[in-house]
Amino acid sequence: MTDEIAIIPGDGIGREVVPAAVRVLEATEPSFAFTEAEAGDAVAEREGTPLPDSTVETVEAADATLFGAAGETAADVILPLREAVGSFANVRPARAYPGVDALRPETDLVFVRENTEGVYSGIESDLGEGVTTLTRVVTESASRRIAEFGFAYADEHDADVTVTHKANVMRTTDGRFLDAVDAVAAERGADYDTELMDALATKLLLDPTQYDVVLCPNLAGDVLSDLAAGLVGGLGLLPSANVGADNALFEPVHGTAPDIAGEGVANPAAAILSAAMLLTHLGYEDEGARVRSAVERTLEEGPRTPDLGGTATTDEVAAAVVSRL
Amino acid sequence: MTDEIAIIPGDGIGREVVPAAVRVLEATEPSFAFTEAEAGDAVAEREGTPLPDSTVETVEAADATLFGAAGETAADVILPLREAVGSFANVRPARAYPGVDALRPETDLVFVRENTEGVYSGIESDLGEGVTTLTRVVTESASRRIAEFGFAYADEHDADVTVTHKANVMRTTDGRFLDAVDAVAAERGADYDTELMDALATKLLLDPTQYDVVLCPNLAGDVLSDLAAGLVGGLGLLPSANVGADNALFEPVHGTAPDIAGEGVANPAAAILSAAMLLTHLGYEDEGARVRSAVERTLEEGPRTPDLGGTATTDEVAAAVVSRL
Ligand SMILES: CC(C)[C@H](C(=O)O)[C@@H](O)C(=O)O
Ligand SMILES: CC(C)[C@H](C(=O)O)[C@@H](O)C(=O)O
Repeated sequence: MTDEIAIIPGDGIGREVVPAAVRVLEATEPSFAFTEAEAGDAVAEREGTPLPDSTVETVEAADATLFGAAGETAADVILPLREAVGSFANVRPARAYPGVDALRPETDLVFVRENTEGVYSGIESDLGEGVTTLTRVVTESASRRIAEFGFAYADEHDADVTVTHKANVMRTTDGRFLDAVDAVAAERGADYDTELMDALATKLLLDPTQYDVVLCPNLAGDVLSDLAAGLVGGLGLLPSANVGADNALFEPVHGTAPDIAGEGVANPAAAILSAAMLLTHLGYEDEGARVRSAVERTLEEGPRTPDLGGTATTDEVAAAVVSRL
Repeated sequence: MTDEIAIIPGDGIGREVVPAAVRVLEATEPSFAFTEAEAGDAVAEREGTPLPDSTVETVEAADATLFGAAGETAADVILPLREAVGSFANVRPARAYPGVDALRPETDLVFVRENTEGVYSGIESDLGEGVTTLTRVVTESASRRIAEFGFAYADEHDADVTVTHKANVMRTTDGRFLDAVDAVAAERGADYDTELMDALATKLLLDPTQYDVVLCPNLAGDVLSDLAAGLVGGLGLLPSANVGADNALFEPVHGTAPDIAGEGVANPAAAILSAAMLLTHLGYEDEGARVRSAVERTLEEGPRTPDLGGTATTDEVAAAVVSRL
């Protein structure tokens, strides 16, 4: 069986790291059919929209998508794409790697972020007289779904679950989230801890080893996973998965890096690690693990791109990863 | 003129650090009349409410309040108290001190947090069928007010301003916030940078020296200031001010620390630094500066409480600060 993979390089270094990741995917056993599609600032300038219908159709028809990055139009690209794959869970591992400078080298966390609601509802109003509102939506069904996903993920990885929230202030909405999580945990006989999101921001810095899987409402996951990026040395190494019931999109957490775009020296690690998550997601667990460990060895032994103190190009790093598969 | 100061020790170590801070205030020149009032878990158990009317009246009648901490009832105490003093600005300095272990010893930041709206509106609904909503409110008037305060504060301290937001997602509400900030900056001829709150979470960890004053919507300020606490070694040293037009409340950012409460070894630094902010706020700038530098010398030279690796009691640290005034 051939899996259909949509490829969206996007803007900036997305155009460099996604081809590098595709090269790694091509070097693994599974047979993939790649279809490239466009999204981001460049296509917006040419066609008037950052996300052409044809791109959405390609993504919907594919078994999985690998996305790079988009510039100014990022939100107009990534939020609809998450919807297009029906993603309800955003999985963001944050790990420090030997050989890479990190503020907390012992960091090894996975954020499981609710990916459909909260302040991302899109429901905003300008009521006049300078008053604006946004409707933060939290539903039992979405809360249960992310909890089920998070606890199952934690089971598979033999990990503890911490649930973060701000229910002391957002009593009804985060209260509903916590109730749903608690009901799911009870059904599964699972344990978990809770932590206020502000307190967790302090504690993740003081001792990240206390945490494994962190189950988060949408915005909490956005902010805390970026905080964790700071713990492991920056956004350059973080992959992510946007998982839906029968489709998924994978993307490095980093952006377009306009300062180095076009020079061919962007670090492809996050994109290649995202490709590894794609492999695992499609059931190619051995291949996913092989890609992951080839990236780890390359981070540790080089060659390295300039962001990690090396002089290698994106292509040289990709070639090194391929040679270590 | 005698200033009326309301004193609310609250629960846990609040009952230890607030008296220590009062002792320091008493040792400064200004003549204060202190009135003690109750709030928190203990009074809730006795009287059925964590915030008796008499406490609110005492706070309203005072020139300023020094608050310690509350336990489970924290939100039911601190949110109404912020309202009682008409606080629109929450000022949270986060500084690393020589002699105190910090993840980023070069950290020296001040968060100026909007203190009245955003997701703290209190407007929530359970719509049935498992759907709950919260109305995030952002107004031009509150946004202008916090911007004016933040830019004035930055001027006084000769500091740069970074404005944080999530307007790529919360377009109308944080868009209104950004527009108001921009209008105020234009009127004042002030410069500022903007930074998405998620990106700022990464960047504060990678290089906090890039930032001085960070102007934040309410929840962003809550989370990012706690993140900064992690950078400087924990919540134990962070003071804060809740500033209104003609009243204000000062509180350490830490909580009740149930694990050490009652032992007389809580670190009073954050409470004493909050008292220093109170002095400055009431116009006793020299005294505020003297208290601050006495705390700094004590942190550097000791005696130190156990959280900082010492063996001193709360009272011994307070006495050392007084002796260095
Ligand atoms: C670009 C933006 C809409 C997006 C988000 O807020 O989810 C980004 O920050 C991310 O985390 O992928
Ligand atoms: C106790 C809680 C309501 C409060 C807040 O969210 O503002 C606290 O976290 C703080 O930052 O002072």
